[in-house]
Amino acid sequence: MISFRNDYSEGAHPQVLAALEQNNLITTCGYSMDDFCAEARDIVRARFSCPQADVHFMVGGTIANTTAIAAALRPWEGVIAADTGHINVHETGAIESSGHKVCAIEAPGGKLTPALVREVMRRHCDGQDEHMVLPRMVYISDATELGTIYTKAELSALHDVCREYGLYLFLDGARLPAALVAEGNDLAPADFAKYCDIFYIGGTKNGLLFGEALVITNDSLKPHFRNMIKQRGGMFAKGFLFGTQFKAYFENDLWLTMARHAVTQAQRLQTAAAEKGYTLYAVSPTNQVFLVLSHAQIERLKRDFAFELNGRVDEAHEAARFVCSWATRPEAVDALIAAL
Amino acid sequence: MISFRNDYSEGAHPQVLAALEQNNLITTCGYSMDDFCAEARDIVRARFSCPQADVHFMVGGTIANTTAIAAALRPWEGVIAADTGHINVHETGAIESSGHKVCAIEAPGGKLTPALVREVMRRHCDGQDEHMVLPRMVYISDATELGTIYTKAELSALHDVCREYGLYLFLDGARLPAALVAEGNDLAPADFAKYCDIFYIGGTKNGLLFGEALVITNDSLKPHFRNMIKQRGGMFAKGFLFGTQFKAYFENDLWLTMARHAVTQAQRLQTAAAEKGYTLYAVSPTNQVFLVLSHAQIERLKRDFAFELNGRVDEAHEAARFVCSWATRPEAVDALIAAL
Amino acid sequence: MISFRNDYSEGAHPQVLAALEQNNLITTCGYSMDDFCAEARDIVRARFSCPQADVHFMVGGTIANTTAIAAALRPWEGVIAADTGHINVHETGAIESSGHKVCAIEAPGGKLTPALVREVMRRHCDGQDEHMVLPRMVYISDATELGTIYTKAELSALHDVCREYGLYLFLDGARLPAALVAEGNDLAPADFAKYCDIFYIGGTKNGLLFGEALVITNDSLKPHFRNMIKQRGGMFAKGFLFGTQFKAYFENDLWLTMARHAVTQAQRLQTAAAEKGYTLYAVSPTNQVFLVLSHAQIERLKRDFAFELNGRVDEAHEAARFVCSWATRPEAVDALIAAL
Amino acid sequence: MISFRNDYSEGAHPQVLAALEQNNLITTCGYSMDDFCAEARDIVRARFSCPQADVHFMVGGTIANTTAIAAALRPWEGVIAADTGHINVHETGAIESSGHKVCAIEAPGGKLTPALVREVMRRHCDGQDEHMVLPRMVYISDATELGTIYTKAELSALHDVCREYGLYLFLDGARLPAALVAEGNDLAPADFAKYCDIFYIGGTKNGLLFGEALVITNDSLKPHFRNMIKQRGGMFAKGFLFGTQFKAYFENDLWLTMARHAVTQAQRLQTAAAEKGYTLYAVSPTNQVFLVLSHAQIERLKRDFAFELNGRVDEAHEAARFVCSWATRPEAVDALIAAL
Repeated sequence: MISFRNDYSEGAHPQVLAALEQNNLITTCGYSMDDFCAEARDIVRARFSCPQADVHFMVGGTIANTTAIAAALRPWEGVIAADTGHINVHETGAIESSGHKVCAIEAPGGKLTPALVREVMRRHCDGQDEHMVLPRMVYISDATELGTIYTKAELSALHDVCREYGLYLFLDGARLPAALVAEGNDLAPADFAKYCDIFYIGGTKNGLLFGEALVITNDSLKPHFRNMIKQRGGMFAKGFLFGTQFKAYFENDLWLTMARHAVTQAQRLQTAAAEKGYTLYAVSPTNQVFLVLSHAQIERLKRDFAFELNGRVDEAHEAARFVCSWATRPEAVDALIAAL
Repeated sequence: MISFRNDYSEGAHPQVLAALEQNNLITTCGYSMDDFCAEARDIVRARFSCPQADVHFMVGGTIANTTAIAAALRPWEGVIAADTGHINVHETGAIESSGHKVCAIEAPGGKLTPALVREVMRRHCDGQDEHMVLPRMVYISDATELGTIYTKAELSALHDVCREYGLYLFLDGARLPAALVAEGNDLAPADFAKYCDIFYIGGTKNGLLFGEALVITNDSLKPHFRNMIKQRGGMFAKGFLFGTQFKAYFENDLWLTMARHAVTQAQRLQTAAAEKGYTLYAVSPTNQVFLVLSHAQIERLKRDFAFELNGRVDEAHEAARFVCSWATRPEAVDALIAAL
Repeated sequence: MISFRNDYSEGAHPQVLAALEQNNLITTCGYSMDDFCAEARDIVRARFSCPQADVHFMVGGTIANTTAIAAALRPWEGVIAADTGHINVHETGAIESSGHKVCAIEAPGGKLTPALVREVMRRHCDGQDEHMVLPRMVYISDATELGTIYTKAELSALHDVCREYGLYLFLDGARLPAALVAEGNDLAPADFAKYCDIFYIGGTKNGLLFGEALVITNDSLKPHFRNMIKQRGGMFAKGFLFGTQFKAYFENDLWLTMARHAVTQAQRLQTAAAEKGYTLYAVSPTNQVFLVLSHAQIERLKRDFAFELNGRVDEAHEAARFVCSWATRPEAVDALIAAL
Repeated sequence: MISFRNDYSEGAHPQVLAALEQNNLITTCGYSMDDFCAEARDIVRARFSCPQADVHFMVGGTIANTTAIAAALRPWEGVIAADTGHINVHETGAIESSGHKVCAIEAPGGKLTPALVREVMRRHCDGQDEHMVLPRMVYISDATELGTIYTKAELSALHDVCREYGLYLFLDGARLPAALVAEGNDLAPADFAKYCDIFYIGGTKNGLLFGEALVITNDSLKPHFRNMIKQRGGMFAKGFLFGTQFKAYFENDLWLTMARHAVTQAQRLQTAAAEKGYTLYAVSPTNQVFLVLSHAQIERLKRDFAFELNGRVDEAHEAARFVCSWATRPEAVDALIAAL
């Protein structure tokens, strides 16, 4: 059985593991207040050109999303998201559990646009109806749940519409490294810091044991964020493990090397599938590939390959997701291509 | 200015007010534990043929909805509603504030159907995906937000699909009296108790100063409901005011008399508007009328009449809502018809 | 059976009821946006000398407390209260239900002092420990749960310690009218507005059918408060009933007349009990009297009088609470005194 | 600087790290649904003699506590804890954030007793007052926050009083391994499963990179627990890391070997301190030592040693906490003893 189930099916890149081992017995302090984390924060601030930003390390995506959103919003406020957004579908209602409505809207390719944001605002009477939730934040992912990415013009335009309506812009970057190395990407790291009020750089899905680096550029979102992390259960005791890992992550651009490998393998698969006549459920330039498969095709492929189904296309077809990672062997992709 | 803004623009029916006055100085106990409430509960149980039901008096619709839903659901569970449902749109995120997702779906005429419930369940992997909210309740209104009503066959079918999926059926009856007297209604009071796990009979929008009678027929929803009322802020100190009012409400079928007046006036208006060529935004047999109006028509009518706009129809038109109540004077309807 | 159970055992003062009746059929708009409410707000602002304050009408104490506290606090913040405080004991965890810890401390006579506030802050590392709740508000009642009152010097000192620590001062005035007319009171209405960031003037326990007038003097607590009221279920449909009642409440100082009656009767009882040798559980200058009674005394009195028990004093004694109201007949007090 | 700050200041025991490295590139599935976790669960069930128990792996203590408590309680229910309990003091209000009151009571030595549980129940009218929170769970820690432990008789008695009142018994075992090897302990692993409805076995504070094994023995707490983990943000993507670590943890009783080392070193320190005349703030048989120190002593020791202060004793003294771990070098303890 060869797995294309996801990009978190193996441990950590050997260089990351080596860093953990090398520093394993150094005594330090807890809760990410140590020197490793301080250094890693400085690296993030330097790489993303945001010297004034606050950087927090989070153990995973759901808790990063919930903590960021619940810390930013007042009780009567909500967050705008694509209907396919992770917070709207795949977090068992974590955002609602923190008291906030996800104001979802159908978004082609999983991407929000200024027009869609305006439409959500219109449906909420532009924030003038006290009987309705007040949208206060826009949540996007780059890469999105469908593997698509935002261009600089698109992100900049979202930034502008957010400023217009007084909305925070929050970017879930669980797969930001894959987006950065994707064909068609013109966003530099500094752009994320420039256009977003808060965003994070995924590590879990790109070769760390765990960890996301959350960057807060908007001053009004900074105070007491660590209180919020602690309250939401995300204050990791051995926080120095974040520092150790993220230092290794950025050393010699390991993070981009890993992302590039994942994207390259996925793109080989997508190109081959398209050439063989498969319909793409979404055209993804990143490390996730979405193919429209018949039930028979699914049954056949499931014998040798592990992958997830992403939703019904029609009576006879489903969307199947194949994910490549830093650890995906090229031979595995060859085998899948051969089996298509 | 003549108001068709809503059905809670005046105080109480004179007979209700007389009852309040008559009993005003009787000393009793608080929190709806008094004899007036006990009698009113018995009347509700008798009228709705549910001798075993628990009956609670709530001060208004939003708090009735929030309390009922938050009491029924476990943290990871959500409630299915029409996208136009009151809890999804007009309660400033009260349900989410209590921790629960509203699983909304586009519903023609504001009415859920078994097919729509199945579709929501399908989107939630029939409750089998632990990364998704687990739908556990269906929320409907009768009359709906668009003035439409459920037939006995429809309500019975919803009951069946709820049983199939293990969903509670909760009916918001803020305008239940108007539904009961509407043309086309074939639901008897007993049917609400038979098909719903929990529902309420509105009083605020039908001639009481305030008050909804919440009926719980499902035993599993009964324990500790009063704790929940208290916690949500809905434990009314002078609860005996509920008892006094509801006794008067049901005496000589005053509640139906009032509802019949409201519906009759609204239907006169709807018929006249249709005859004059107006497009109905929804065909309502109850006390709310929805007309598609041009901006110019709106401006003209606003000079003499108060009413609410309900949403954009197209660039040039909006849906306008005109509501009649127990207190609407026939001359007011005449004047509006003349002005159309 | 003569009831001293509480001060909300009857309907409304006849003048209040007359006002409701007189305005009953006037058509107005909902949600406290009407002219009656506007006038009543102006009266409150004038009487309490706070022309810039926001005034909101709430249907009862628990929902006023929860709404005010949940609107003011960020998720990681808590509210300081006396251990006997209503929010700590008698609201079924409503404050915690909104996500906030009540930081309770034993408080003699039910009254917080600057020293007690400092002690709570010390226990929370003066707000410097991110692993602890950050106290952000002080909640007091005047009169307190034990019938005691604050002097001007005491309230002013609490105001000062709150400023020092960056705490909001919130005063629950469910029985504020009784405090205002109590012997020993030197607080003028204007002082509440001067020293508190937010407070309310009780109506439910002083002769209205229902209603508390919440006054916000601190600008930072004003925005979007109505959104919060709606979300918490406290947006009363027929809000004009607040306006009608509160206008009558303040006319010719009816509110003080009613409070004075209640306090006078209670003080007659307290004085008589003390003269007869009863131990006072608390010395109350307001409309609640707390006597230490033996089990035998309780059994005997319960035959003819209704009252509540407030907690164990020792193996043989309990504290019994007797409450007088605007509606308490002097003969009832005479009868109780005779029975003591 | 030698650190006695806590027991999570280093990475993992080398055997644990070796296991991670050995299995690093094995492809498996996410979210703790893999074979490593399945094996580790079986080991836990076998060691704790609870073949029917559900075992879940949690990333840390706070999220384990919050998830367990929020999953067990209905909205109006609360949890009883010692005033020094971790959930009451050091989790930034995480429990309240999930909507539940912590019903705290002063508890000598950080330990609850049946008498204290009864007292909390009495203060809550034995659950009969709907205006109060309904206590539904008892939360204890073994070892406690003060390093003390429960005997079998004590735990059994708590179990009995919980049964009597219908309370769940939840044991926070973040330092359970230290308790197990402490002098005076007579609890066998099986006893925890026998007497508790839910408990966990700490790994983070005893030589794992991270991880607690949560054991649910009460069937009514089992359903949908994974939904709750996901919603609270605790669903760890690379869950197989739990399995890998816990397998190594239990191999050849490594967990007990590590705990024994920590306890031995701490006891050496405590004995020496007592012999030197220091007052013990608490007499702890586990890996935490609490000394009463003067400000001058604190200043002097802080020059060479890192440790935490635990609270004021009097004007002149504070309680200082010194923690030993699996990684504490005997020479470090020697140095501290010499410096006392």
